[in-house]
Amino acid sequence: MERGITTQGPVNGKLAGELARLLSPDQICTIGPELRDALQDGTGNRGIIGHAEALVLPADAGEVSLTLAWCYEKGVPVTVRGGGTGLAGGAVPDGGVVLSLERLDRVRSIDPELWRMEVEAGVRTATIHRLALENGLLFPPDPGASEQSTIGGNIATNAGGPHAFRYGVTGSWVTGIEAVVPPGEILVSGGPLRKNVAGLDLTDLMIGSEGTLGIVTSAWLRLVPAPAERGVVVGFYPDSNSGCDAIGLIMGSGIEPAALEFLDRGTLESSIGSFPATAPNAAGFAVIAETDGTATEVDRVAAELEEAMTEGALTAPVRITDHVAIRDFWAWRDGVSIAVTAQRGGKISEDVVVPLESLAEAIEETVAIGERHGLPGCSWGHAGDGNLHSSFLVDLSDEEQMSRGNEAAAEIFEMAIRLGGSISGEHGIGSLKTAHVEEALGPVAVRLQAEIKRVFDPKLLLNPGKKIPRR
Amino acid sequence: MERGITTQGPVNGKLAGELARLLSPDQICTIGPELRDALQDGTGNRGIIGHAEALVLPADAGEVSLTLAWCYEKGVPVTVRGGGTGLAGGAVPDGGVVLSLERLDRVRSIDPELWRMEVEAGVRTATIHRLALENGLLFPPDPGASEQSTIGGNIATNAGGPHAFRYGVTGSWVTGIEAVVPPGEILVSGGPLRKNVAGLDLTDLMIGSEGTLGIVTSAWLRLVPAPAERGVVVGFYPDSNSGCDAIGLIMGSGIEPAALEFLDRGTLESSIGSFPATAPNAAGFAVIAETDGTATEVDRVAAELEEAMTEGALTAPVRITDHVAIRDFWAWRDGVSIAVTAQRGGKISEDVVVPLESLAEAIEETVAIGERHGLPGCSWGHAGDGNLHSSFLVDLSDEEQMSRGNEAAAEIFEMAIRLGGSISGEHGIGSLKTAHVEEALGPVAVRLQAEIKRVFDPKLLLNPGKKIPRR
Repeated sequence: MERGITTQGPVNGKLAGELARLLSPDQICTIGPELRDALQDGTGNRGIIGHAEALVLPADAGEVSLTLAWCYEKGVPVTVRGGGTGLAGGAVPDGGVVLSLERLDRVRSIDPELWRMEVEAGVRTATIHRLALENGLLFPPDPGASEQSTIGGNIATNAGGPHAFRYGVTGSWVTGIEAVVPPGEILVSGGPLRKNVAGLDLTDLMIGSEGTLGIVTSAWLRLVPAPAERGVVVGFYPDSNSGCDAIGLIMGSGIEPAALEFLDRGTLESSIGSFPATAPNAAGFAVIAETDGTATEVDRVAAELEEAMTEGALTAPVRITDHVAIRDFWAWRDGVSIAVTAQRGGKISEDVVVPLESLAEAIEETVAIGERHGLPGCSWGHAGDGNLHSSFLVDLSDEEQMSRGNEAAAEIFEMAIRLGGSISGEHGIGSLKTAHVEEALGPVAVRLQAEIKRVFDPKLLLNPGKKIPRR
Repeated sequence: MERGITTQGPVNGKLAGELARLLSPDQICTIGPELRDALQDGTGNRGIIGHAEALVLPADAGEVSLTLAWCYEKGVPVTVRGGGTGLAGGAVPDGGVVLSLERLDRVRSIDPELWRMEVEAGVRTATIHRLALENGLLFPPDPGASEQSTIGGNIATNAGGPHAFRYGVTGSWVTGIEAVVPPGEILVSGGPLRKNVAGLDLTDLMIGSEGTLGIVTSAWLRLVPAPAERGVVVGFYPDSNSGCDAIGLIMGSGIEPAALEFLDRGTLESSIGSFPATAPNAAGFAVIAETDGTATEVDRVAAELEEAMTEGALTAPVRITDHVAIRDFWAWRDGVSIAVTAQRGGKISEDVVVPLESLAEAIEETVAIGERHGLPGCSWGHAGDGNLHSSFLVDLSDEEQMSRGNEAAAEIFEMAIRLGGSISGEHGIGSLKTAHVEEALGPVAVRLQAEIKRVFDPKLLLNPGKKIPRR
């Protein structure tokens, strides 16, 4: 028996045969590397691996409906899977069926002159970016791992990214969805419409619900004309206080950057070696601001950003405007998480959000929490949104270290709540944070969302135990 | 007995006394002009007047909770009231208590350097605009009647306005709410946070729910730096086809206007007399585009807009950049609805939305539907959002004409659904459109939202019969 695959599950004996009759044999997988890959997501590096009896690969919404109806009738749990890049265990199954949407990969329509497209859930985020740009348009949400992640997964977690600061998270760009809800019905909510108040906002209710209410099979996306140019300005500061002061000066300057990011001392120590421009030695903090627009506008705003970012900086801020250099810069920025992981081979990294006035405190407290648990702590993230990836370096094979790391992570959640923040800004709750939800949301919201869960999923078979605490 | 006031209601005898003990006598009103005013909203000009047993004026969330708890215990229906400017009858009571939020009028906090404020539900929309601007910031949602309407009402309907084209509707700017939900609990969802995926999105579920799920008592609003300058460009065309072609050219030009509006022939006939600039005679269609930014950017984009709007135009497009002239222009634009009403003393005006490619058809079909019912028909609205106010001129005192007007309005809803659109873009469903909801949303969404309604409001006392069809 391969690790993690349950061959003794309640339905396994007849499962493959029954599902194969519903769909076709090449859409069911009960053993082997493909199923094994479907038992984990981006938390695999923390050793989190689930178990399941089968991987099912429907090819369209009708087959998703057939599969869900069958699971619902048989009482089989369903874990929906996108690109498998999630960072909260939302796609890690706990028995039953993994329903992968990778074959729902059609671009149903693209209407550049109407600034919109309709894509199936399995379309890669990077494909959407490319298609939009080829038509002079921008799909702004830019979570990491865009070559692997899918729009369905982005919708399931309401994914963010650096440019969410100006442009908003995934949900801001979704005007409608098609979804399969128990016991197998197809729900269409919204559409290719930019405004719609005909009903309760079921679209936004499904967005960010992490596969607990239904299975989003396609989405209508809103686009905007792509800016012609971008300009990145990076300032380096001695410490988090001076760096956060610079963030305050930017916010107070009347500029609205497209992205406003930070990296703290520990993050810089891990990653500055490959910074694709000149950086001062021993910086304790970096602030990244990007602007976009015409070349003239980018020049003007980049100069204003430099002015706002000069006070307290170690050196004159670095400006990057060349297209290739900007691409290299963001590739470096995307790689920061991996660079931090490389220090000890593993990390426990959370995704909390705090009111902006508490960002400096949260950054310092992350380091202090790490120190109390004997682990190097660092953070980086989306400064303007108060969204930080508080991380602790660990050796994954050291159980005692992992235990301390998990205790430190729990303190990060407590800190975020104490500061008036939230336990997830963009990664979601998944299986990792469900225990902290009641403290974060309070009893009224917890009651309401548990009851809403039952409206959609009365048998509690959709991603059971994830996101929404049972009452 | 005054018109519309039920003195024989099931609880009226003891109502005032009991509520007065809960709150204070000056917070309860069971007779007189103040209650009479609370029986209608912006649909009063269509003769729509409700009935209620009392108007209750709580002063804070705690008193809203006390009032709702009392109503819930006694089985008394509750209709929540903001500024009373709604256009779908959402605030028109059908018995029970009108709960006005006008005394919840505090700005709880404003943090200009953090681009946010927290306001109670009764704060006027115009007050929020002014407060933001005084601090160099912009609260972009700009529904009509902003001096009278309140943020609570804007949230209840997820109100839009011209600048929703670029900036999004009210919900795009609300990061959190405080609300009272049955049986009187205070729900806090979100907060002063720009990102948050800790729970299901109860904030967006409440936004646009028109007082059917709970009573929003305050909101955290996101703001942005205010643009320094604006520029309006108006093009006049012979007919709706040439005008809609110009809209297509703007959309295809790579420009993202802040607002993109239209007025059709009948609307222009009613309103062009007071147009605060030079307009050609006998134009059949007008397109309005606004851009904002620095003076240089506004100059550049306004010139690009003029270029895109020249083909097919009757005269060279009119550009307005002077601050006072722009204020006068938008005051004229806001007055279009009243100018149309003035033609016959009344109008039946709906608020449908269609995919942008169907805008021209919807505009022409509005006129044709009017003709079939012997009524002048016209439309104007938010072209870029496909959101049109399809209107029929009527004499309110002529019952036969009103009947034909209502039949024509029903055909407008059917048209919007047939074109893949929706029966409300920004006004909401209220009492006027509930009969059309099932056709618009389909049976799955209707079932789900009816069940969600029961989760929040198991006794169905909150704005009963509005928005959400019973099953």
